[in-house]
Amino acid sequence: MTHDVAFLDALSLDGRVETDRETLEAYSHDESPHPPSLPDAVVHAASTDDVSAVLAACEERGVPVTPRSGGSSIEGNPIPTAGGVLLDTFPMDDVEVHAADRLAIAEPGVVYDDLNDVLAEYGLRFAPGIAAGDRATVGGMVANDASGLNAVKYGVTGDHVRRLTVVLADGRVLRFGRDVAKSASGYRLKDLLVGSEGTLGVVTEVALSLEPVPKTRRAALAAFPTRGAAGEAVAHVMASRLTPGAIEYLDADAVALLNETNDAGLPEAPHVLVELHGTTDAGVETDLDVVRDACTDAECESFETASETEIDRLWAARRDVYPAACDYREDATVAFIGDVVVPVSRYPEIVERAAALADDLGIAAPCVGHAGDGNLHFLPIADLDDEDEFGRAMELNDRMVRAAIEMGGTSTGEHGVGVGKREFMREEHDGAVDVMRDLKETLDPAGILNPGKVLPEE
Amino acid sequence: MTHDVAFLDALSLDGRVETDRETLEAYSHDESPHPPSLPDAVVHAASTDDVSAVLAACEERGVPVTPRSGGSSIEGNPIPTAGGVLLDTFPMDDVEVHAADRLAIAEPGVVYDDLNDVLAEYGLRFAPGIAAGDRATVGGMVANDASGLNAVKYGVTGDHVRRLTVVLADGRVLRFGRDVAKSASGYRLKDLLVGSEGTLGVVTEVALSLEPVPKTRRAALAAFPTRGAAGEAVAHVMASRLTPGAIEYLDADAVALLNETNDAGLPEAPHVLVELHGTTDAGVETDLDVVRDACTDAECESFETASETEIDRLWAARRDVYPAACDYREDATVAFIGDVVVPVSRYPEIVERAAALADDLGIAAPCVGHAGDGNLHFLPIADLDDEDEFGRAMELNDRMVRAAIEMGGTSTGEHGVGVGKREFMREEHDGAVDVMRDLKETLDPAGILNPGKVLPEE
Ligand SMILES: Cc1cc2nc3c(=O)[nH]c(=O)nc-3n(C[C@H](O)[C@H](O)[C@H](O)COP(=O)(O)OP(=O)(O)OC[C@H]3O[C@@H](n4cnc5c(N)ncnc54)[C@H](O)[C@@H]3O)c2cc1C
Ligand SMILES: Cc1cc2nc3c(=O)[nH]c(=O)nc-3n(C[C@H](O)[C@H](O)[C@H](O)COP(=O)(O)OP(=O)(O)OC[C@H]3O[C@@H](n4cnc5c(N)ncnc54)[C@H](O)[C@@H]3O)c2cc1C
Repeated sequence: MTHDVAFLDALSLDGRVETDRETLEAYSHDESPHPPSLPDAVVHAASTDDVSAVLAACEERGVPVTPRSGGSSIEGNPIPTAGGVLLDTFPMDDVEVHAADRLAIAEPGVVYDDLNDVLAEYGLRFAPGIAAGDRATVGGMVANDASGLNAVKYGVTGDHVRRLTVVLADGRVLRFGRDVAKSASGYRLKDLLVGSEGTLGVVTEVALSLEPVPKTRRAALAAFPTRGAAGEAVAHVMASRLTPGAIEYLDADAVALLNETNDAGLPEAPHVLVELHGTTDAGVETDLDVVRDACTDAECESFETASETEIDRLWAARRDVYPAACDYREDATVAFIGDVVVPVSRYPEIVERAAALADDLGIAAPCVGHAGDGNLHFLPIADLDDEDEFGRAMELNDRMVRAAIEMGGTSTGEHGVGVGKREFMREEHDGAVDVMRDLKETLDPAGILNPGKVLPEE
Repeated sequence: MTHDVAFLDALSLDGRVETDRETLEAYSHDESPHPPSLPDAVVHAASTDDVSAVLAACEERGVPVTPRSGGSSIEGNPIPTAGGVLLDTFPMDDVEVHAADRLAIAEPGVVYDDLNDVLAEYGLRFAPGIAAGDRATVGGMVANDASGLNAVKYGVTGDHVRRLTVVLADGRVLRFGRDVAKSASGYRLKDLLVGSEGTLGVVTEVALSLEPVPKTRRAALAAFPTRGAAGEAVAHVMASRLTPGAIEYLDADAVALLNETNDAGLPEAPHVLVELHGTTDAGVETDLDVVRDACTDAECESFETASETEIDRLWAARRDVYPAACDYREDATVAFIGDVVVPVSRYPEIVERAAALADDLGIAAPCVGHAGDGNLHFLPIADLDDEDEFGRAMELNDRMVRAAIEMGGTSTGEHGVGVGKREFMREEHDGAVDVMRDLKETLDPAGILNPGKVLPEE
């Protein structure tokens, strides 16, 4: 479906409008294999006024608008499936730091790692710990309710949002929330926008709550005889009185990839990686004992600790598992990144299930996960042009999502619904889906905002 | 306005219906001096089915329904101002603890202190730290987005909600959210219900995230020459890399009340009370040094530390400030509890402003506050029957709220809007109020749920 977008020229925007084929193609996809779709124009917004002008004009004409910021999504979240305007908020990237209030005011295009570089000067950080931090932006993270490594202790993106400036579908510019640590005043509209993936409004400014940089960090790395045993160790740690700064699971395949690209030299067995944050060395040592006990109880085969400098090397290596998995086989790549969550007490079960299902389907699927939150990522490797193999990879996703939902879990912990998880919404949320649809109709009656996302087809 | 409630008799409820005068009067008010209003019937709900049956029947007939649980609100939140049915969810008080998942599933009538007594056996707690914990319930806390002492470190009630079971105005029973640590699946409906004060739906079950009980606690108590200096100390602590478990402000009047009722023997000067949570004694000692430095920089006149047992005595004494203030003058009482929040960097300013405004108006108003969040409570003492004096107390509220909003703050940090703060909604939220109204109309088109609350009059 193509839309006439000539009206854009009449808007006096601070930013630029592009309609050349190359640009349209560059903005037709995200980082997933979900089918690309060309927008009719790309608007690079330079200000809240730009966003407002574009939305008002598009609503009047019923032209779809898909917001996009870093474009690093992996569920098709920012693909302009209905064409129309691709509204790029990446150029909006101002940051203001109010250190005394532990507050950053960021525009949507600010990249996660860049923000944390600025904040480091103040001894502060925005803490969810996303793996794609070199590309993911504040706007995209708010819209996807993204998170990662450190969410287990510090919470997800949504937990850090104090206030949003939002442009509604009709062009109204509103502020949801206040720039303070807490408020019980009126409905929590900001939280409705969080995770709405650009379907309810466009975010043009975010007031974020910050955390102090931890004073002391230590890490531990344990190897286990089985996946289930590693899962047990995670459950034991989370059942203790300790909340680690991060607690990650890697199966033997993921460790093999890590060894390959980073000379990590680890035994090719399921591992748990724990990072501890504290005020003093003594405190962190005490916590380390708790972790050691939990791993010993789960019959670990080795337990090593890592210093501050070694930790960062480990996380960098962990980040490399994904590209390494993409190169795992010459004729294949990672078909998608699975992203389910279960209650952490059932983590041993879901890691075993992932392996059994992949085995059943004849698919290699290394697994990693933000285990303390019950979050498991699986990386099925398939030739995208081989219909049968790709089909089996998708079938793995299907079965894993259904297993997670059945265990009381969720179809996505971090990546959002996009187009990829729409079909599971009814199964997961039942009648609540109707309420979501009602809210969508209330906030975007013309249905112009990122159509075809989040809500399932009728 | 009275409503015919005879239809209630035809519903086969698990709970009881009462319409006798004495019961109606008992449920006509909360803990505030906002004018009472009689309901036409009180339904003591015993199950989700009861709630659903009552709502469906009332919606069909356009009869107002005001939910209520502990009845401890102080902004008129559960007063049935339009009559109709007072729906009492206090009898629903089952709790299930899933310790391994750091999860409690509680019905709305579970009292905060009782829940924490149960959780203590597991080394866990529900952590916001509300002062009215002996009466406030999980349902009321979710509906008001309540918090208190420990929110500065652990977050407010809403930050702990994983999933709600909600009955909508038309009787539909839905689950918002999932019983897991995180989810990026669909709109965050649960967060829209949080803080909606019974105006969008009735909560019948809450899945709450729990925190481990801190292993080590220490406290510090510092006295300052001026209010502003105490405020500076708070701002310094929050600007450090430390997040205390609690950090409270008390002005000289509040300390005098504390001395009177608890023989606390403290100098009658502004105080800051800090509680530190950690893993080891050494860690907490290090934190204590940071607090000592912050207080010294702010020119404290004394600095004392308190042991674990002394801390609890101090907090008990802090809880007694309110009843003591009520008895401060024989012919008067606390007219209301003021509840504003400002950015913590402006805490020195708001504490001075409170004193100056009270002075101007000739009103005694002891102040206490959850200072680390920028939250200040002021307790104006007035004869409720003395129109002039009560008027001046209300004027103090008006000026304080406007001052807080002007400083970028909020009209209520904890107590909610109820009837008391409605008039400030437009000033604080501007056009976002229209969105709140649209959502209210979407979820409760007949307008039966707790009418006359939260949203300002048109
Ligand atoms: C290798 C790899 C690793 C990853 N690891 C993680 C991880 O650890 N954790 C995680 O959570 N995710 C991860 N992701 C997914 C992705 O990086 C995140 O979801 C991220 O938050 C997307 O941000 P973005 O700026 O790229 O947003 P985009 O992809 O541009 O957009 C994301 C969504 O937000 C909407 N949107 C964008 N800008 C706005 C705006 N201004 N207003 C309103 N809506 C807007 C879009 O319409 C879209 O629906 C990973 C991706 C890759 C490729
Ligand atoms: C001395 C004193 C000290 C206080 N200290 C604090 C404090 O430190 N922090 C703080 O936050 N508050 C404080 N409060 C205020 C009050 O205790 C809290 O707001 C508390 O959360 C109210 O809980 P409740 O169970 O009494 O709710 P209620 O008063 O019964 O109701 C509160 C609101 O929730 C709605 N509601 C009740 N049950 C349900 C349900 N099942 N579903 C949907 N809506 C429902 C009601 O309609 C009403 O709008 C204090 C009050 C007093 C008197």
